[in-house]
Amino acid sequence: MAGIADAARQVLEEGGRVALQYATADGYLPLREYIADRYRRRLGLPAAPGEIQIVNGSQQCLDLVAKIFLNRGDHIGMERPGYLGAIEAFSLYEPEFHTVALEDDGPDLSAFEALVERRPVKFFYGVPNSQNPSGRTYSQEKRRAVAEILEATDTLFYEDDAFGELFFDGKPRLPVKRRLPDQAILSGSFSKIVAPGMRIGWIYAPEAIIEQFNVAKQAADLHSNFLCQMILHRYLTMHDLDAHTRRVAAAYGENCRLMCDLLDDLMPPGVSSMAVFKEGIRRKVAVMPGVPFYVDGGGEDMIRLNFSNADTESITEGMHRLAKVIRGLV
Amino acid sequence: MAGIADAARQVLEEGGRVALQYATADGYLPLREYIADRYRRRLGLPAAPGEIQIVNGSQQCLDLVAKIFLNRGDHIGMERPGYLGAIEAFSLYEPEFHTVALEDDGPDLSAFEALVERRPVKFFYGVPNSQNPSGRTYSQEKRRAVAEILEATDTLFYEDDAFGELFFDGKPRLPVKRRLPDQAILSGSFSKIVAPGMRIGWIYAPEAIIEQFNVAKQAADLHSNFLCQMILHRYLTMHDLDAHTRRVAAAYGENCRLMCDLLDDLMPPGVSSMAVFKEGIRRKVAVMPGVPFYVDGGGEDMIRLNFSNADTESITEGMHRLAKVIRGLV
Repeated sequence: MAGIADAARQVLEEGGRVALQYATADGYLPLREYIADRYRRRLGLPAAPGEIQIVNGSQQCLDLVAKIFLNRGDHIGMERPGYLGAIEAFSLYEPEFHTVALEDDGPDLSAFEALVERRPVKFFYGVPNSQNPSGRTYSQEKRRAVAEILEATDTLFYEDDAFGELFFDGKPRLPVKRRLPDQAILSGSFSKIVAPGMRIGWIYAPEAIIEQFNVAKQAADLHSNFLCQMILHRYLTMHDLDAHTRRVAAAYGENCRLMCDLLDDLMPPGVSSMAVFKEGIRRKVAVMPGVPFYVDGGGEDMIRLNFSNADTESITEGMHRLAKVIRGLV
Repeated sequence: MAGIADAARQVLEEGGRVALQYATADGYLPLREYIADRYRRRLGLPAAPGEIQIVNGSQQCLDLVAKIFLNRGDHIGMERPGYLGAIEAFSLYEPEFHTVALEDDGPDLSAFEALVERRPVKFFYGVPNSQNPSGRTYSQEKRRAVAEILEATDTLFYEDDAFGELFFDGKPRLPVKRRLPDQAILSGSFSKIVAPGMRIGWIYAPEAIIEQFNVAKQAADLHSNFLCQMILHRYLTMHDLDAHTRRVAAAYGENCRLMCDLLDDLMPPGVSSMAVFKEGIRRKVAVMPGVPFYVDGGGEDMIRLNFSNADTESITEGMHRLAKVIRGLV
């Protein structure tokens, strides 16, 4: 917070005139260099600044991908359950959704293979790390298998990696794109690791695809907020992002463990998620019912809980309220 | 500039935590109140904050309108020549363009009437104030006639008003929307009057249409950069925007007059705009050829010049270089 304020002051004192003018659609070059360098250093991915496009958070990447690749009736693949923001963004372009069950360690591989072999989907959209809403992470074996199946069928993979840096076990996750350099669009975001209110994320893709993103981005809103790109970059050069994400991940990990423990302790099984949602609102505890995450039906017995944006007191109080709601419904 | 820096410091010191968090899709309420109040005060338009949606500059409004209203093959109307940013944004949705010649005082009314009567266009896109690229402004008579024709045919008007505050003759222009409250989408932008690099504009439309914009905005990028919305609002509360726009308009007016005088003095008639463009680049004077502004062909004898983002020395030097280029081609 104070760090962002310092960075803002410096940018506006030193380079304010540039920060407030029109800029290029691809994004602030030093920020793109920082992102590419970080991929090389952290994950051994051979990223170049020309393969990075700055966007307004992961959500705009969803919209630009849809804008570039989808026409009404096109087929796309995604996980079941799937990320609601993606379902909403894609739905406006009226594709046909095909889902593959997301198991504990990644997609059901035989269903996945059957889908991409049966029909040419424009892309398969997946969230291999801490998927929203399931929280599941693909195993190394499933990452390899997914890459092989996609490569064999020449299918594009849209790898949404908004959470890739926030793992709780100390082991960095290697993107599927590492095994599929020419066939994967990898998107990332500063929302979860620095600040969502700045709306700054990025796309990492082969240059031929990045050129299409440049055109779509220009048509969408010319370029992302340039002042904030400069403030963010200044902040990043003054702070150790690795250390920061480790602290954030550790705090999220504690919240997650607390919530899971309370789930085990407090909750009886077997109630309708929509009923929990409605009764929860009445008793001031908000949950996300599972239904909207299933484009082809299902999710009635699922809810999504949020452990990242709450302190331990709120989690404890919320879980006790939720237990009361659910016990009242059993 | 110093004003923006002050505003940024205050926002980050006082409300930084909120400024950096996720926010709602419609935009920062005090900023929407400011915009609505300004419409009421300056132009007598009965705008309410619930009729305002914040977007990333006018360009995102173009994209959201297309996203909401256009499917492939839909018919839309626009001026000839038309704004290139709009042509690019709409083209991605593959509509059929129908153009109406833009005369000195607005659209050719009989062609306009014939178009909207002949076929149901999804909307007519127009720039009544200082149109880009022609610089033309609709007369009061044509504004009234356009509103009457649109009302009689129940046709939606998309009124792009990025330049409405920057008039050179001291007379504020009344938007067509004033006569067409339920059938017009009016878009505005802080790009030309405060700073383009912040990418903040707005849409003013009936609430039923604003609801659709909310959904489309959420799918596009969740919400506009919240930190900059707060900085901008703080800046606006500390400064007299009316006085500022009067100063900007006066400076632009002087540049415009200088450029027009030099055009009269220096330029011979009758050369190809594409040749001027290519030869100009070689001699380091950039002009925009007219051709891309004509979706159905034309514009070979037109160029667009920019007088807003240059000082008098650059204009004088540039016009002399341009005269040399053109004389060399005659």
